[in-house]
Amino acid sequence: MQKIEHLGIAVDNLEEANALFAKLLGASHYKIEEVDSEKVATSFFKIGDTKIELLEATAETSAIHGFIKKRGKGIHHIAFGVADIEAEMERLTQEGFELLNDKPKAGADGKLVCFLHPKSTGGVLVEICQDK
Amino acid sequence: MQKIEHLGIAVDNLEEANALFAKLLGASHYKIEEVDSEKVATSFFKIGDTKIELLEATAETSAIHGFIKKRGKGIHHIAFGVADIEAEMERLTQEGFELLNDKPKAGADGKLVCFLHPKSTGGVLVEICQDK
Repeated sequence: MQKIEHLGIAVDNLEEANALFAKLLGASHYKIEEVDSEKVATSFFKIGDTKIELLEATAETSAIHGFIKKRGKGIHHIAFGVADIEAEMERLTQEGFELLNDKPKAGADGKLVCFLHPKSTGGVLVEICQDK
Repeated sequence: MQKIEHLGIAVDNLEEANALFAKLLGASHYKIEEVDSEKVATSFFKIGDTKIELLEATAETSAIHGFIKKRGKGIHHIAFGVADIEAEMERLTQEGFELLNDKPKAGADGKLVCFLHPKSTGGVLVEICQDK
């Protein structure tokens, strides 16, 4: 793991959350992107050498919809940047972590991503991601 | 806000969590510190230019004990580094955020810290911190 690439936060209204986090961070989001495969609309804020990603569900089948229903709005996942996602998936599997996808999949922000099951990571939803 | 200074994760057993996160991150924690005023034992991992702080309650009166009882283990707070904590507390109050302490208090890792109420920050427990 090289760095915290971003921190994902589940929100129920992206426009309102963009205004709130701009006030909190003292800087506006720099892009909005829909990820159709995940049924989310996302926005990104730069903070130091990492990012905050706000995620709003665009359908009831979205994991973000389920998360908010169960736990409320708030921090959803940590994403770690890796140089070689397939090698890291192999290493994590050998270390006993449970991966939520067999192969890297396309995520927001031009990344290949893989998630780890929170039950294998102390209750933390972990994403690893690599630039395409 | 200058950067994400650290990410706080609530754990129920610091020794086991240190081993788990060392496997996840590929690097061990570099220090352990008890914060008696908060009734927590903490450990720190470096990752890029930020840190991960694991927090175990050392008493049932600890906020970490209450957090785990209510929500389970997992991500507890985001801490943003600031240059001037009193000026930032003033700015955040004027922006409508609710501070959980009136004055900066001593936190782990040689910091002055202040927390914001999650109800004013989209469900995210936010800490701001400044080097002493």
